[in-house]
Amino acid sequence: MVAKLLDGKKVAKEIRDALKKRVEELHKKGIRPKLVVILVGEDGASKVYVRNKHRAAEKIGIETADVKLPQDITEKELLSIVKKYNEDDSVHGILVQLPLPAQINEEKVTCAIAPEKDVDGFHPINIGHLFMNAPRSLPCTPHGIMKFFEKYDLPLAGQNVVIVGRSNIVGRPLAALMLNHDATVTVTHSKTKNLAQFTRQADILIAAVGRADFIKREDVKPGAVVIDVGMNRNADGKLVGDVAQQGVSEVASYITPVPGGVGPMTIAMLMEQTVEFAERGVQIANRKVSHG
Amino acid sequence: MVAKLLDGKKVAKEIRDALKKRVEELHKKGIRPKLVVILVGEDGASKVYVRNKHRAAEKIGIETADVKLPQDITEKELLSIVKKYNEDDSVHGILVQLPLPAQINEEKVTCAIAPEKDVDGFHPINIGHLFMNAPRSLPCTPHGIMKFFEKYDLPLAGQNVVIVGRSNIVGRPLAALMLNHDATVTVTHSKTKNLAQFTRQADILIAAVGRADFIKREDVKPGAVVIDVGMNRNADGKLVGDVAQQGVSEVASYITPVPGGVGPMTIAMLMEQTVEFAERGVQIANRKVSHG
Repeated sequence: MVAKLLDGKKVAKEIRDALKKRVEELHKKGIRPKLVVILVGEDGASKVYVRNKHRAAEKIGIETADVKLPQDITEKELLSIVKKYNEDDSVHGILVQLPLPAQINEEKVTCAIAPEKDVDGFHPINIGHLFMNAPRSLPCTPHGIMKFFEKYDLPLAGQNVVIVGRSNIVGRPLAALMLNHDATVTVTHSKTKNLAQFTRQADILIAAVGRADFIKREDVKPGAVVIDVGMNRNADGKLVGDVAQQGVSEVASYITPVPGGVGPMTIAMLMEQTVEFAERGVQIANRKVSHG
Repeated sequence: MVAKLLDGKKVAKEIRDALKKRVEELHKKGIRPKLVVILVGEDGASKVYVRNKHRAAEKIGIETADVKLPQDITEKELLSIVKKYNEDDSVHGILVQLPLPAQINEEKVTCAIAPEKDVDGFHPINIGHLFMNAPRSLPCTPHGIMKFFEKYDLPLAGQNVVIVGRSNIVGRPLAALMLNHDATVTVTHSKTKNLAQFTRQADILIAAVGRADFIKREDVKPGAVVIDVGMNRNADGKLVGDVAQQGVSEVASYITPVPGGVGPMTIAMLMEQTVEFAERGVQIANRKVSHG
């Protein structure tokens, strides 16, 4: 077997094209979807990611505002900037790029973003709604992974999903989403004994550990769908995932490449969430008008 | 093998005795922990449960107030009653007994309770904090289950935990708690294929499905710890769990009886949460004083 590719670039482009039309509809109503990206300090990886976000937004017609803040900004100053955008009706989505410098409590900042503008879906109230199967904002990477299953028409109900990694931004919310879609879900992590015993039973295997080539051919059940969330530099400086792609491709039925798999989907989902928030704003405004 | 009993009655009494001392300390500071229980209509099971809560509270020295409301109360009226107790500084915990009549949106009511008085831990923001491994209020039944592992000194890290049932009040929050304690966690449910294949691999098996004798001897790995969350009436009108206790007792290492297992722990955890909220109130008041 040679695995088919789950093509993140292609699917992300389809999503962007559909979003472009939704943005045009909003423009007709005088709404200009706007995403504010707050970046503290000079972290190189964050800067690249922020630049990619801007490029994607531009293609779709989403307005973006970059707020670059000094590395030594106080927590209080950052919170007051977040508050300003919470209260600004022209802003539909707010994103504070993590990680933040040590003097700032990340949880406090995450909780300060208005839940209805929380495009990253990291506010605890949005995480809570997600886990109670009534999501209002979805973390972008797990949401992007779910889109692959939708776009390639791959079944989830009753499938044995094994997630390797239990982070707050990937493993945990993805577990909730998969459960909401009727999959049987196992979350494994660094403390799991006999990891391969779990991965080898997976119909759908998701690797989100941040270690190059961590999942090998012998860890994968023949015919499994393999999602590689990793973005690691190997010894040669090459960008590689958490999955030994060459070997695993020989046994899996579908696999996401790295790069060009989960990465582009994450950014597309950020755009979709921003557009959705802008549309919800219109709905709420309409409701207010119709109620007098 | 004959399984040892995880004795909920005994452990709950130990917890109540310890809470009694904490309440006495609070009394010395002039704080009287108070729990408000709001009961709408005449649901028989709810009434029994509410009575048990009151009895437990009385033993510990927690003040309780019963708010009995008519079946046909409007959502608006109920919300305004919740608001009143949110604003009442003498109240430390508020619980609205579910289910609610059809004219009332349960989610709206759950979200209306102040998160710092949400003793049931059902507010989405509290669920969110739990799933992000920074819990502030824990749903009582999952919390009670975790206490068994603490009190009987049973390991969780690296253990293969299989949960049968994915409800918002047991399965999902328990999965988060087990993950926070370094267990490998699988959530199974009605759509799971080959359920026995999962349950037979469990070091710790939790049944929360609401079906009498659903888990049988052959579904259990020899030596497993079995937690029975079920409370069902069988054909003879007898109260039974989700686990065929007699057969399973012959292979499990530990098992919770029904009744006298998870049930008493749930109520003990409600009491603990109320006392903890009252203590937190004192801490916050002290902090305010010391800051001038």
